[in-house]
Amino acid sequence: MSDIYSDTETHLESGSTLVGAHGRALREVSAEQQTVEQTLVDNVVMSFVSCEDPRLRELMVSLVEHLHSFIRETRLTEGEWATAIDFLTRAGHITDDVRQEFILLSDTLGASMQTINVNNQAYADATEATVFGPFFVEDAPGIELGGDMSFGAPGEPCWVEGTVRDTDGKPLGGARIEVWEADDDGLYDVQYDAGKRAARAHMFTERDGSYRFWGLTPTPYPIPDDGPVGQMLAAVGRSPLRAAHLHFMVSHRSARTLVTHIFPEGDPVGWKDSVFGVKKSLIKKFDRQRVGTPTPDGRAIDGTWSRVRFDIVLVPSDG
Amino acid sequence: MSDIYSDTETHLESGSTLVGAHGRALREVSAEQQTVEQTLVDNVVMSFVSCEDPRLRELMVSLVEHLHSFIRETRLTEGEWATAIDFLTRAGHITDDVRQEFILLSDTLGASMQTINVNNQAYADATEATVFGPFFVEDAPGIELGGDMSFGAPGEPCWVEGTVRDTDGKPLGGARIEVWEADDDGLYDVQYDAGKRAARAHMFTERDGSYRFWGLTPTPYPIPDDGPVGQMLAAVGRSPLRAAHLHFMVSHRSARTLVTHIFPEGDPVGWKDSVFGVKKSLIKKFDRQRVGTPTPDGRAIDGTWSRVRFDIVLVPSDG
Repeated sequence: MSDIYSDTETHLESGSTLVGAHGRALREVSAEQQTVEQTLVDNVVMSFVSCEDPRLRELMVSLVEHLHSFIRETRLTEGEWATAIDFLTRAGHITDDVRQEFILLSDTLGASMQTINVNNQAYADATEATVFGPFFVEDAPGIELGGDMSFGAPGEPCWVEGTVRDTDGKPLGGARIEVWEADDDGLYDVQYDAGKRAARAHMFTERDGSYRFWGLTPTPYPIPDDGPVGQMLAAVGRSPLRAAHLHFMVSHRSARTLVTHIFPEGDPVGWKDSVFGVKKSLIKKFDRQRVGTPTPDGRAIDGTWSRVRFDIVLVPSDG
Repeated sequence: MSDIYSDTETHLESGSTLVGAHGRALREVSAEQQTVEQTLVDNVVMSFVSCEDPRLRELMVSLVEHLHSFIRETRLTEGEWATAIDFLTRAGHITDDVRQEFILLSDTLGASMQTINVNNQAYADATEATVFGPFFVEDAPGIELGGDMSFGAPGEPCWVEGTVRDTDGKPLGGARIEVWEADDDGLYDVQYDAGKRAARAHMFTERDGSYRFWGLTPTPYPIPDDGPVGQMLAAVGRSPLRAAHLHFMVSHRSARTLVTHIFPEGDPVGWKDSVFGVKKSLIKKFDRQRVGTPTPDGRAIDGTWSRVRFDIVLVPSDG
């Protein structure tokens, strides 16, 4: 048995050497000009004074303050502004029911992951959350425990098993587990055809909280990069590759719903994940099995296969 | 002779009493959680380290820092994030060749005006710039000096005259003046039909820098508010009305191109302009003329008309 990937970890160190633009350019601006600019910010902020929803007002004021600080600190040119308007317009036009360029943009700027961080703070030993991604669909087929969620999608078979418990260690029977992933060609079913359903399913845990199913060994794939977000990544010298992963969404009446992935240990993309979704606790050992190794349920497999264990801990609803 | 509007000025005072969210909510977050969040910001910033264009890198880093600060300071919820994605998606889908929702969004958040401020700092006594707006078209018809740019658009006739000079006082002959405005029903020609051309024209100044034309007395009108930006304005209790205005774009081979408006003194919308475009120096007295008052060029007019003078000063190309 060996790991799926060689174990070269490429974690970017925190504590960046790139200094942000905060205030740098702005220091060279005359006091008179700064007053003109700040007066505008104040007037825009004041325009929200009649907003009756205090939370909406807070969001709009913070948005306006940061947006104006961005423009002032970078001394944004009119041409750059026009490029931004054009970028958003093209992102809007490429977005449809199965392609969501604004989620890709949020993902590649780390904004999706930061929102997950803010809303899923560490709680006891509960399993960590990560990005949802744009490829979940509501109507994935149901399978029995031990069933195959690939529905013929190409890839190496992977046996996935584990339990769902709460933070007190109590098994959660009847928990709903949604799983979905890309196939070996790096594509989700809906990217072939909006109506296609493969490499996705839902199932329910047994009374003892256990679950098991056949899926595919996850492989790295690029996010859709033929649109404005792909152009942005190319312009800044970033790869569109996502770290290999298998999506989970786990829900139970007495627990907070968890949206997460598991990542194979040793994936060469790993920490360079284009959407910043990797967390250390979610990296799991996917053990590759030699040709001919007997499978847990007696299924006959022609080539190699892999197996992984993922024990899930949910936060109580009132936690 | 009287002003077009009563003179109730509704300037919002600067020095807001609304405190921004900067750092407030964030102070209640544990040090451990702050480290998780800051590490993500650092990793995203680091992902731009290979960007070969230093200006693009600066813009992306500043964007990421402000975007993440917005999420962290407001403790943005996952539902609010989804609302933002949906807002951008709908803005993209309503945008076409003549409707530009992202420009409206930028305008109503004051971002367009701030970009104008940053790029058009006060220079000697040069005329101030203001927002471009989404309704300029390249192929406006040419008119002779003294001609009528309304081309039958409904509204009160308005005689506009003035000169174009540089900051040394030298008249600029042959300067190209583009003018465009909404009609009395609050609509631009292209809002009726993408191919319609009315209430817009271009002309060239005489050798002595002078120009003159017939237009329409500007009236306040709402920005298009049947889309997501209109919903945002309604949700925060803001009016979609723009202050009444007449657009100018003035260019000359030896000067920086100026994009601006003039605003009638006493407009009840005035400083509450939905796009924050009003500047004191651009408010002009539009004098209403009684029925029967002789016109400057002998044109026969059935009802009232108005007249305004707008002397334009351009910044030299090398200024």
